[in-house]
Amino acid sequence: MKFSIERGALLRAVARAQSVVERRNTIPILANVLIEAEGDEVHFRATDLDIEVVDKAPAKVERAGATTVNAVTFHEIVRKLPDGALVNLTDDGASGRLSVEAGRSHFALATLPRQDFPVMANAEYSANFAAPAPVLRRLFDKSKFAISTEETRYYLNGVYMHVAEANSGRVLRCVATDGHRLARIDAGLPDGAETMPGVIVPRKAVNELRKLLEDDDMEIAVSVSETKIRFATPEITLTSKVIDGTFPDYTRVIPTNNQKRLEVDASDFAKAVDRVATVSSERSRAVKLQLDEDRLILSVNAPDAGNAEEELVVAYSDEKLEIGFNAKYLLEIASQVDRENAVFLFNSSGDPTLMREGSDDSAVYVVMPMRV
Amino acid sequence: MKFSIERGALLRAVARAQSVVERRNTIPILANVLIEAEGDEVHFRATDLDIEVVDKAPAKVERAGATTVNAVTFHEIVRKLPDGALVNLTDDGASGRLSVEAGRSHFALATLPRQDFPVMANAEYSANFAAPAPVLRRLFDKSKFAISTEETRYYLNGVYMHVAEANSGRVLRCVATDGHRLARIDAGLPDGAETMPGVIVPRKAVNELRKLLEDDDMEIAVSVSETKIRFATPEITLTSKVIDGTFPDYTRVIPTNNQKRLEVDASDFAKAVDRVATVSSERSRAVKLQLDEDRLILSVNAPDAGNAEEELVVAYSDEKLEIGFNAKYLLEIASQVDRENAVFLFNSSGDPTLMREGSDDSAVYVVMPMRV
Repeated sequence: MKFSIERGALLRAVARAQSVVERRNTIPILANVLIEAEGDEVHFRATDLDIEVVDKAPAKVERAGATTVNAVTFHEIVRKLPDGALVNLTDDGASGRLSVEAGRSHFALATLPRQDFPVMANAEYSANFAAPAPVLRRLFDKSKFAISTEETRYYLNGVYMHVAEANSGRVLRCVATDGHRLARIDAGLPDGAETMPGVIVPRKAVNELRKLLEDDDMEIAVSVSETKIRFATPEITLTSKVIDGTFPDYTRVIPTNNQKRLEVDASDFAKAVDRVATVSSERSRAVKLQLDEDRLILSVNAPDAGNAEEELVVAYSDEKLEIGFNAKYLLEIASQVDRENAVFLFNSSGDPTLMREGSDDSAVYVVMPMRV
Repeated sequence: MKFSIERGALLRAVARAQSVVERRNTIPILANVLIEAEGDEVHFRATDLDIEVVDKAPAKVERAGATTVNAVTFHEIVRKLPDGALVNLTDDGASGRLSVEAGRSHFALATLPRQDFPVMANAEYSANFAAPAPVLRRLFDKSKFAISTEETRYYLNGVYMHVAEANSGRVLRCVATDGHRLARIDAGLPDGAETMPGVIVPRKAVNELRKLLEDDDMEIAVSVSETKIRFATPEITLTSKVIDGTFPDYTRVIPTNNQKRLEVDASDFAKAVDRVATVSSERSRAVKLQLDEDRLILSVNAPDAGNAEEELVVAYSDEKLEIGFNAKYLLEIASQVDRENAVFLFNSSGDPTLMREGSDDSAVYVVMPMRV
């Protein structure tokens, strides 16, 4: 293998590939990136056996071939090369070293044979569709905060992406929950997604996917099977196994008959919750909401540290209510609101509360109350 | 106690004071900041028993008085208050709560009696002088990287600041060393510093001091005794105990007769060292320098990961030399150089090497070689 490549293009490709590599590996080859040069491009492939990323970059290939080197070391070296440098990579196939040359720098990196690199098997995808990056970004960004971190509830360790029936018709829906709070985000159903099986996209894949979605004008090709999901741009392909489990029936958790309606400026509300929560250093800080005619009092009482109280002018015309929430959950939900106003719908101080943005029900959140 | 203060002024003062507070305290009062209101200003005082910071801010004091509250919580609250808010602080002296009010926010913070707060005893200072902030910044910034972290060698856990005789006459000198490398930085002796005893300023005080030195136009009042050092601006007073120990005779460590002279672009050199060191993940990476007629080859050999080599064009006209250094030490020393060129003076591959900036000997560095 022998090719030359511009340092900037190399850095971008290697940076994205190496980010899926786990920092602690018991299997040495998993610390490596597979470099495959052919035609006029080079593929950089990295995997943790659950997720695989392949990143393409244009290169001047003199001799096709493939090898693997340590992803982190290789990335660090490329990062430290001067901007604009032309990098020459050569693997003679015999020395067990990849030569990396740029200007007066010369590196010889230990390689492992390409045959040992676990390339993810191709899947038969039952649905293929395209979605604009901003649509996928919204679906995952607004739901991922609610992903459970409890490993025993592995079927909650991801975002459940599926086709659902909403008031507006069939939608592409992402749901995440940890049992304390839930997010349900809808988007219009793309052509070709109708046959998509529901899949649970694991947290790490959601985070890696996020990096593909920065460009507003990008269309993402999505392919889904019962066991895998793939997201692709012209340069990058991210393939992930999906979580082998059944996502619980979340629809039963979403209250449909909460009548007490609070409308509040989302940003003011989030800041006030953040402030009053400061007095308590406990992890599960409870914030009390006292609702009365167009008035909301937020308060926290921490016997050791003191107490805090803040009053907000709100729109509320139902009967008085006192209800408590975990401050962190309340903050996270309030910070999902892009528009000015958050609408909370309460039933009683013991029942789940629903939150949405204005009257839009394409993004709804549920949070369980806490006794205060 | 009762006063009102602008949120910005309060935040600045509390931020600086709370930074000396240790996050883990067995003595509860040490987690607190002492707030003293009198006349038309308020003092915020924090200590870890070794360092004390007092920060003044203008305020409208209605009722003089003093109390103490948790520094971190108080700082967090002030930070989260809206910019431009007027903050009212009231301690009724009976409830054990400090009331903090701003707009519609109200906090009641647990207090501890001011009598319990350990105020550092005043010292008799044997020398008082003034030094411009940039001068002190240079003295400490260029030396502190060499401070030892070995707690058993407590007398090396700081910067030794003293009056010394240099070629240019008497100077104010800062020296730090960990036995592997040493920095010796000189500045003109300020009026009044002649009688200063040599003191070892502990690392934490050096770091806290740094925050007082941002303003180029600031004159810093320095007071020194055998046991304490004090740095003061009109707003802030930082007092620190000095390390009770004898700094070793560093002069014997500084080579005076190294003849082999290498002159190299400091930035190119640092970048090249950084690049070649990438192939080894070990903490004590050895970089080999091979010197020949106007040519320097830097190399690292890590049997498992590979090897790296880089050539630099340099000014060198002495006999061939091979010498090894810890990459981290070499990098840290090279990055102290503000001017273009670093001058290294070598003796043999087993002897300490001297580095300075051009022909200026007001900042010299010594680094011990490693066998490679």
